[in-house]
Amino acid sequence: MKLATLKQGGRDGTLVVVRRDLARCLPVPAIARTLQAALDDWQACEPQLRQVYEALNSDTVESQPFDQAACHSPLPRAYQWADGSAYINHVELVRKARNAEMPPSFYTDPLMYQGGSDSFIGPRDAVVADESWGIDFEAEVTVVTGDLPMGATPAEAAKAIRLLMLVNDVSLRNLIPNELAKGFGFFQSKPASAFSPIAVTPDELGDAWKDAKVHLPLVVHLNDKLFGKPEAGVDMTFDFGQLIAHVAKTRELEAGSIIGSGTVSNKQGDLWGSSIEHGGVGYCCLAEVRTYETIEQGEPSTPFMRDGDVVRVEMFDREGRSVFGTIENRVVARKG
Amino acid sequence: MKLATLKQGGRDGTLVVVRRDLARCLPVPAIARTLQAALDDWQACEPQLRQVYEALNSDTVESQPFDQAACHSPLPRAYQWADGSAYINHVELVRKARNAEMPPSFYTDPLMYQGGSDSFIGPRDAVVADESWGIDFEAEVTVVTGDLPMGATPAEAAKAIRLLMLVNDVSLRNLIPNELAKGFGFFQSKPASAFSPIAVTPDELGDAWKDAKVHLPLVVHLNDKLFGKPEAGVDMTFDFGQLIAHVAKTRELEAGSIIGSGTVSNKQGDLWGSSIEHGGVGYCCLAEVRTYETIEQGEPSTPFMRDGDVVRVEMFDREGRSVFGTIENRVVARKG
Repeated sequence: MKLATLKQGGRDGTLVVVRRDLARCLPVPAIARTLQAALDDWQACEPQLRQVYEALNSDTVESQPFDQAACHSPLPRAYQWADGSAYINHVELVRKARNAEMPPSFYTDPLMYQGGSDSFIGPRDAVVADESWGIDFEAEVTVVTGDLPMGATPAEAAKAIRLLMLVNDVSLRNLIPNELAKGFGFFQSKPASAFSPIAVTPDELGDAWKDAKVHLPLVVHLNDKLFGKPEAGVDMTFDFGQLIAHVAKTRELEAGSIIGSGTVSNKQGDLWGSSIEHGGVGYCCLAEVRTYETIEQGEPSTPFMRDGDVVRVEMFDREGRSVFGTIENRVVARKG
Repeated sequence: MKLATLKQGGRDGTLVVVRRDLARCLPVPAIARTLQAALDDWQACEPQLRQVYEALNSDTVESQPFDQAACHSPLPRAYQWADGSAYINHVELVRKARNAEMPPSFYTDPLMYQGGSDSFIGPRDAVVADESWGIDFEAEVTVVTGDLPMGATPAEAAKAIRLLMLVNDVSLRNLIPNELAKGFGFFQSKPASAFSPIAVTPDELGDAWKDAKVHLPLVVHLNDKLFGKPEAGVDMTFDFGQLIAHVAKTRELEAGSIIGSGTVSNKQGDLWGSSIEHGGVGYCCLAEVRTYETIEQGEPSTPFMRDGDVVRVEMFDREGRSVFGTIENRVVARKG
C-alpha cells in the first residue's frame, strides 16, 4: 500500500492513498484525515486503507491525479525522528580520514541521534541554509513504527514497522565539529529533513523487504548527474529491528516514530574504484567522497552544496518503477 | 492562565482550563480538544481560553473538581523537546569532578540536546527503569513555544513563549559515559520525562517572570525530605530567549516545541555549605550532590534512586501557592 500527504488541509496536511504507479490518488477523510491519525489507530484504519488501495489499482473508484510536487513529507511533523548509523562503512571512512580509532563497540551497539521532528520540509522544498555551514545531503532509508513497549526485542521491533520512506537528512558539516566537541551530539548541524513523497507498507516491496532491510539500490543524483546507487541491503550492520530495539531499550515508542538507517554506504575500494565513472556505486552524501579524497589526497576537493545545487533521492524496484517517488531539494543559500 | 491535560480522551488527552487555585477545572472541547490543538491555533484560542479562565476564577461558570493525579503531562506527546544546560554551575561542577576543562565557549554557546518526545510519562506516573542504569531526576523549568522562523533573535524568541511548565527530566547516569563516548550525545540515557500537571502563561507569574527567566525557587523533595530549593532566576547563564534562539539558528520551530532550562543549580560553597541542613539551597538532581562528594571525598556516597524512591518537584509563588501543581514520580525498578 502507498500513502502520501498533500500539503493542503492544515499543519498535518491531507492523507491520500496513492495508486501503485503513482499516477492517481484519493483522499480518505472518512478513514483518517492525516497519516498520524491513521497510525494512531492502525488496526482499524489499515484494512480500510487497503480496500481503497485495491480499488485504486483496479480503477474501480473515482480518483484524482497525483502530483508529487503537491506533497509534504508523509508526516509533515512527527513525534519522533531518531536516526541510526547502520552502515558502518561510512563511519569507518570518516574515522579513517581523521585518524581516529574505530571502537569495537561500534560493531555491536548502534550509533544513533535524536533528530528534530517538529517541522520537516517537503520532498520538493528548498533547503534554506548558509553556504558557510557546509551543506550536505544524506540519502537514507527510514521506517515508521507503531506502538512498541520498552524492552522490545529486535524481532518484536521489526514487527512494529508500519511504513517505509526515504529521507534526505540534511547535514551542516561545518557546524558538526564544534557541536560534537561540546559532547552533547548534533543539534544545529541537523536542520529539517525531507522525506519521500510516498510512504509504503513493507509488503509493497515484495522480496526486496527481507530481514528487516530493503534490498534495492538507493539512487542519488546531484545536479542531474548520477552520484550514488549503493545497495541499501548490503553492508547494513544493524537491521531496522535492531535499530528500533535500540530506541526501545529504556523507553516505549509511540506510533508514528520515524527511525532512520543513516547514510547508505557500501564497502568498495579506493576513491577511483568507488566512483560511478569507474564502476563503483558512488555515495549517498558529499562527506563520503570528501573522506576518500582526504584519505588519498590529503584534503577534500569536492565542495559542499552551493546555492542552486539540486539533490535527487529515489529508489526503483527491479522493474525500474519508482517505489517512493522522488525527493528533490534545491539549496537556497542564505548569507550568514 | 492555567491549563492542564486530563488522561481521558485519547493519546493527547483532554485539555482543561484550571482555576488559579488548582481546585476546579473545565474541559473546553468547543475551543480546543487538546493542548496541541490550542497551540496550533493560539491566536484564535487564547482569548477564548482566557475568558473561561476568568469565569472559573470568578466562579461564574459550571466546573468540575480538578485532580492533579488524573493529569497527563500537558503535552502527552510533543513534536519537539530540546533541553539546554543554562545553569553553567552544574556543568562546571560535573567537569570539575572529572578533572575536565571548561571550554570558554560554554559561557557563550548553550549546550543543548534533542530529547525524545513521542511518549512522556504523566506527572504522577512511575519511572520504570533498571536500578543498575543509575536512575536520577533533574528538576527544570521549561517553556512551550509558538511558531518561530529560522534565524529568530533571542528577543523574538522570548516573545514566542506561550506557556511555562516544570519537568522531571529523568536521567540514567550509568548509561551516560558510554553514550557520550560514542560522540553522538544522549539517547538511551534520557528516557521519558514527566512534566508538571499545569502549564501556565507567563503573565500568571507576575513579577516572577522577568528577562525570560522564572524568578522563584524550584522545590525538590526526595522521599518527603527537602532536597533542593535553588532560585530558578539565579545563575541562569542563558535565558529562555537565548535557548530558543539557539534552536532556531538553522531551522524554524513549530508551535508546541518544548525547550528546557537544564537542571536548575545555584552557585554555592562546598558540600557542607550547599546542603539544606547547613543553610544551602540543595540540589535539583542526585548527580550534583554526588559531584560535590567526588570533588571533596574522592567518590560519591549518595546513591541513585532505588525501587520505591519518590521525587517531588514543584514551585510556589511568593505567597506559597503552588503554581504548576506537583510532579511526583516513584521509581519502579525493573531488573535488567
